[in-house]
Amino acid sequence: MKKGQFITFEGPEGSGKTTHIRLLALFLKKQGHSVVVTREPGGTPLAHAFRRLLLDTGDGLLPLAELFLYEADRAQHVLQTILPALKKGRTVLCDRYTDSTLAYQGSGRGLNAKEIETLNRIASMNLKPNLTILLDVPVERGLKQARRKKNKHDRLERAGLAFHQRVRQGFLRLAKKEHKRFRVVQQQDTIEQTQRMIRESLGIR
Amino acid sequence: MKKGQFITFEGPEGSGKTTHIRLLALFLKKQGHSVVVTREPGGTPLAHAFRRLLLDTGDGLLPLAELFLYEADRAQHVLQTILPALKKGRTVLCDRYTDSTLAYQGSGRGLNAKEIETLNRIASMNLKPNLTILLDVPVERGLKQARRKKNKHDRLERAGLAFHQRVRQGFLRLAKKEHKRFRVVQQQDTIEQTQRMIRESLGIR
Repeated sequence: MKKGQFITFEGPEGSGKTTHIRLLALFLKKQGHSVVVTREPGGTPLAHAFRRLLLDTGDGLLPLAELFLYEADRAQHVLQTILPALKKGRTVLCDRYTDSTLAYQGSGRGLNAKEIETLNRIASMNLKPNLTILLDVPVERGLKQARRKKNKHDRLERAGLAFHQRVRQGFLRLAKKEHKRFRVVQQQDTIEQTQRMIRESLGIR
Repeated sequence: MKKGQFITFEGPEGSGKTTHIRLLALFLKKQGHSVVVTREPGGTPLAHAFRRLLLDTGDGLLPLAELFLYEADRAQHVLQTILPALKKGRTVLCDRYTDSTLAYQGSGRGLNAKEIETLNRIASMNLKPNLTILLDVPVERGLKQARRKKNKHDRLERAGLAFHQRVRQGFLRLAKKEHKRFRVVQQQDTIEQTQRMIRESLGIR
């Protein structure tokens, strides 16, 4: 796989993005990549405050305000973390990016997709991923896995099954629409199997 | 003056907006208006957290991220505070609104004005003020007055004279461009004189 690419990982709750990014990062490092692992929201020192605000505000935060907060976090993240790393030729693996905003705020919360695309473009300064891995998992299975990991349910996980179904379908539609950029990987029975499929989708093994 | 209007107050630091909004609100209440006084950033319960994040983050916050944070605050504010008040026929006096974003983030920090207009429109759901009072004051005089009021200088007030000059000129250009919506009131020697001019500009006395 070419070095210095910007690769994003997308998918519903409990799809295993964090685990698989970590494993892929280890693998790529062995292959000589200089790897940066980062995530949205929260990939900058400042973004810790954003993340707390976003995930802990309970139901007082309106969807449109939430959308702008995610974009604030993104602007900071792209300028401060992603672009500098890419300029140095590093491979950037990012846990959630613009597609999550379209899936969660658009398909999930019902905000206008054209407006989200506009905000995504402005906040990211039009930086698009070279490749996007969509880790797909049936919603109930994913939520069960997400719950197992945390004691506390954050706002997103309380949003209900129908919401998460819309999010998943949103991701799948995006992957269809931009099939050149996306690789869709279904969650397998074991982490090892899924990780192998991710590597195969990237043409590495 | 017609009841139930949305009136915004704009102007550089130390232009006396807070004082004059308070005085005008008292006056309008006596005239039978039901008045809501609010401000950006910070006109919702949740927005307290936004305001703290915006004003206290020091220099780590990048201009583009700052812009999106202001818009997040605005979305919450318009939906939760301003629109409900206007629907009840109340007169809304708001300390800063979309013009401040154009003056501070556009003219001041140099972000793209077209993009700011787009974000302003989306965040405000295209809600425009019926009238905007621009309280104008020479920058050095304004900063001196702003400093007198607070012990702590926040991030905006540390930004330097040239920044605040650009902001002031930005406001004046906006007032020229949208002269039907704007009333420009120069700060006078006394609060009473300025307040009288504000009332005159609104056709009330």
